[in-house]
Amino acid sequence: MTSKKLVNSVAGCADDALAGLVACNPNLQLLQGHRVALRSDLDSLKGRVALLSGGGSGHEPAHAGFIGKGMLTGVIAGAVFTSPAVGSILAAIRAVAQVGTVGTLLIVKNYTGDRLNFGLAREQARAEGIPVEMVVIGDDSAFAVLKKAGRRGLCGTVLIHKVAGALAEAGVGLEEITQRVSAVAKAMGTLGVSLSSCSVPGSRPTFELSPDEVEMGLGIHGEAGVRRIKMAATDEIVRLMLDHMTDASNASHVPVRPGSSVVLMVNNLGGLSFLELGVLADAAIRSLEARGVNIARALVGTFMSALEMAGVSLTLLLVDDPLLKLIDAETTAAAWPNVARVSVTGQKRSRAAPVEPQEAPDSSAPGGSTSKRTALVLERVCATLLGLEKHLNALDRAAGDGDCGTTHSRAARAIQAWLKEGPPPASPTQLLSKLSVLLLEKMGGSSGALYGLFLTAAAQPLKATTDLPAWSAAMDAGLEAMQKYGKAAPGDRTMLDSLWAAGQELHAWKRPGADFFQVLSKAVKSAEAAAEATRNMEAGAGRASYISSAQLDQPDPGAVAAAAILRAILEVLESQGV
Amino acid sequence: MTSKKLVNSVAGCADDALAGLVACNPNLQLLQGHRVALRSDLDSLKGRVALLSGGGSGHEPAHAGFIGKGMLTGVIAGAVFTSPAVGSILAAIRAVAQVGTVGTLLIVKNYTGDRLNFGLAREQARAEGIPVEMVVIGDDSAFAVLKKAGRRGLCGTVLIHKVAGALAEAGVGLEEITQRVSAVAKAMGTLGVSLSSCSVPGSRPTFELSPDEVEMGLGIHGEAGVRRIKMAATDEIVRLMLDHMTDASNASHVPVRPGSSVVLMVNNLGGLSFLELGVLADAAIRSLEARGVNIARALVGTFMSALEMAGVSLTLLLVDDPLLKLIDAETTAAAWPNVARVSVTGQKRSRAAPVEPQEAPDSSAPGGSTSKRTALVLERVCATLLGLEKHLNALDRAAGDGDCGTTHSRAARAIQAWLKEGPPPASPTQLLSKLSVLLLEKMGGSSGALYGLFLTAAAQPLKATTDLPAWSAAMDAGLEAMQKYGKAAPGDRTMLDSLWAAGQELHAWKRPGADFFQVLSKAVKSAEAAAEATRNMEAGAGRASYISSAQLDQPDPGAVAAAAILRAILEVLESQGV
Repeated sequence: MTSKKLVNSVAGCADDALAGLVACNPNLQLLQGHRVALRSDLDSLKGRVALLSGGGSGHEPAHAGFIGKGMLTGVIAGAVFTSPAVGSILAAIRAVAQVGTVGTLLIVKNYTGDRLNFGLAREQARAEGIPVEMVVIGDDSAFAVLKKAGRRGLCGTVLIHKVAGALAEAGVGLEEITQRVSAVAKAMGTLGVSLSSCSVPGSRPTFELSPDEVEMGLGIHGEAGVRRIKMAATDEIVRLMLDHMTDASNASHVPVRPGSSVVLMVNNLGGLSFLELGVLADAAIRSLEARGVNIARALVGTFMSALEMAGVSLTLLLVDDPLLKLIDAETTAAAWPNVARVSVTGQKRSRAAPVEPQEAPDSSAPGGSTSKRTALVLERVCATLLGLEKHLNALDRAAGDGDCGTTHSRAARAIQAWLKEGPPPASPTQLLSKLSVLLLEKMGGSSGALYGLFLTAAAQPLKATTDLPAWSAAMDAGLEAMQKYGKAAPGDRTMLDSLWAAGQELHAWKRPGADFFQVLSKAVKSAEAAAEATRNMEAGAGRASYISSAQLDQPDPGAVAAAAILRAILEVLESQGV
Repeated sequence: MTSKKLVNSVAGCADDALAGLVACNPNLQLLQGHRVALRSDLDSLKGRVALLSGGGSGHEPAHAGFIGKGMLTGVIAGAVFTSPAVGSILAAIRAVAQVGTVGTLLIVKNYTGDRLNFGLAREQARAEGIPVEMVVIGDDSAFAVLKKAGRRGLCGTVLIHKVAGALAEAGVGLEEITQRVSAVAKAMGTLGVSLSSCSVPGSRPTFELSPDEVEMGLGIHGEAGVRRIKMAATDEIVRLMLDHMTDASNASHVPVRPGSSVVLMVNNLGGLSFLELGVLADAAIRSLEARGVNIARALVGTFMSALEMAGVSLTLLLVDDPLLKLIDAETTAAAWPNVARVSVTGQKRSRAAPVEPQEAPDSSAPGGSTSKRTALVLERVCATLLGLEKHLNALDRAAGDGDCGTTHSRAARAIQAWLKEGPPPASPTQLLSKLSVLLLEKMGGSSGALYGLFLTAAAQPLKATTDLPAWSAAMDAGLEAMQKYGKAAPGDRTMLDSLWAAGQELHAWKRPGADFFQVLSKAVKSAEAAAEATRNMEAGAGRASYISSAQLDQPDPGAVAAAAILRAILEVLESQGV
């Protein structure tokens, strides 16, 4: 079976992809008749060295993403995983020569096809009198014994684009740029691991991996790697990678030693999640620093991909200060990341948690009559909820996941445990705030957060005064917060229905001379009626909203619980004769 | 089966991923005891508004990648696809308040858990006297009929981070930022398509798609979308997406009309290849411009992912000039791309191909005796190669893919066809250059490129003079280019072996009074001996290098062909008595 791909045609996908990058980036232009992208400000490059790179498509954002001031002048793209045409390479060289550049450096990844095609175009251009140099990049650290073909060109090539680009932008000549980047290219290594292969559009995946296997030391064209290892923790995989890359007996190792300074690239080979990329970056930083390596810069992202391969490569480049300045130099290249120009190693990576605000001292006598009454109220509320557990769960089974009673019982037990620790605060604001934190943490779920919100908001109007109008305002503030953040409105078949009905009645407390119990009693009855009325409501929010109203013929358990809580409060206060 | 993931543990992966991003980016710090990342230069923010965002992990680089000067002050991350803890949100608010910021804006994606937890932290912070506002972003354009829960927060949220960040950096106050971004948030829409689901670490994929199906209108947590469509060309898929997003009968549409200016985001949902992302970006630009929409900026990359989902989302934000200035404002956020600050629509996207150099006029008489002799030589070479086709293929079957004879015959027929067009150039440089282009284009493969290289390089020393020393120098130049770009050396069992042996003999031409035929004859014999000697060589380059030397007991077909070509040249010249 061939791969599923978002393309218009297999034959045209490399053209379309390059056209898309150019269309989105006004700094680029295509060269007519060729799969070539060039800086659109070419004419500003008179007297400077031009830098051309490229290769097969399928490595995006390489190479066109690295065109820009301070990086590449242009790229020549082949079909997917295929070397570009000699004629197009020559056309690109001519185009940059004709605007008055003083010479061109070809930056070529070490693959036979690329070497031959770029080499031939170079010889043809030189025959026309255009000064053209060529560096062949081989940064692969996979092969412990080198074949004649040498190391493959991998993600490290992007660092060469950067270094050469900074030098060209600084006005350095062709010969010196060629020498400098040739030296830099010898001081780096790259190694990849992958959880999957990739598939060229129109073809099948190039290899298969079992669910517990990881491929190590692979190229960027879907080639299998040098070793297949068992799936392991990322720390262990990174350790194996760094061991291999820095092992002096590996002919293609990077000579990284304790005290070395490096630029680290953590490159998504295409289809790995960025979550995993972060986990792997973390492991790489820790492992390198444990080896005494100084990480000067760390670049994390997608730079040189192998289509949708779910893998990652690590690149290490040995750097000194002059080289770091070139890495840090400005560029407008779209795919070069925003990198902080300070050392990664040696930074303080965390800051102390903020100071928690001091609690205001409780103005009422702790353990006084108010505290005692509050404890009685809370105990009754808890007993009520525990008694309702089975009933609430049964109601919830018809509309949700059947745990509404369990959730409320959990809250009740948490409050009971808390009451055993000592008398509750006498200050209503402190009481509601404490209960808010308790329910949020111990009740859990949306109910915990909603009661937490209700109580936190309700606590505020009671800071200044605790008279009856303030208690009505507290109820309103709680209801408002619940609606605002929970997005439920009265009539949506939720706990809000009971609480809202009660809140409307409590407005009577704002009138001078209102009777506390008369109003509260009316509010509780109204809440109970509202809970019962949810029986006929369609669910407008919460989990029950996914269920057809025809299946809902019981009242909402959240609304029933809220009404029961209000009834419990009323009964204790009446018995105490507040 | 649970998913294969590069993590250390399922429980710790969100912590590790955030730690990795922070470790790689010295501009960030973790807040001790919380899954919170903050700007490391917090203390410089005194007197400014702080911007906090966040949500579940699994959307990387969102949100921590957008922390920096000109974007977010910090983020609070939950477990994968889970809302962050209220305590951590509150800790982040306190931390930015304690450095002297004048207020905090919470930028929250519209999900119940996020709304409740950020809302509760906000209420708690306000109770502590910290000014905190909150905007809830819903940019989803999937649902034609809106549910009470409203539009989901998707990739457009990143644009809000950018706009709010630019305003905060400019010193705008909390209330005004809140108002401005609330208005901007209403002027955008996002729609996703995907070729696959994703899987939370430790879990299975959330849905399955057939090889010919595409999911449209999905969220960023692996939820299925609003519609499943048949796989189609990308142009068609993009047309469907844009139709849906801009359809006025869709309650969540973006009111994009002919003449509208937009910022376009093409967002990789995680595991799509960047090749496909480019194809899709191209289709989106073309489709929008065909609708008369002016694309002010186009951002392509991974901004808000859904783990490794192989999909893409398009976001459209209606913009005017003041808003565009905010999008264009500087930021140090690592994941914000380098975007050119010029309009995408209206740019010239290609430049004319370069001028091809004029051919120097052929100084020798065209069609003269030199041309005639050259034609005779080439005809004999072609006849020889055609006669050898089966023999060369047989030799190649033992060591390669059995097409060496076919490849050389293809070259022979191309030369024959070319000779019919008219007499060959009399100038050796022009002759070799013409043959170089011909072989590169018509012979194909590595052999075509290698002969192309050989002839291009050989043509150069013959520009100034065509005496015998120049012909020896031409041979050397050709051999050098072949070795340099092909990476084969004499003794590697390739065509180079015969040519190199001949070249060594031709050095005799450099001596005064050297006999043309005597030297050439010796060179041909030496080439034939070298071809025969490849029988005992191990392959050091080319396809045969992958085969054990024990299996190779025939001479290399490329070397045999090269020797035969030289013999054919000698025989014609002898018969003509040059």
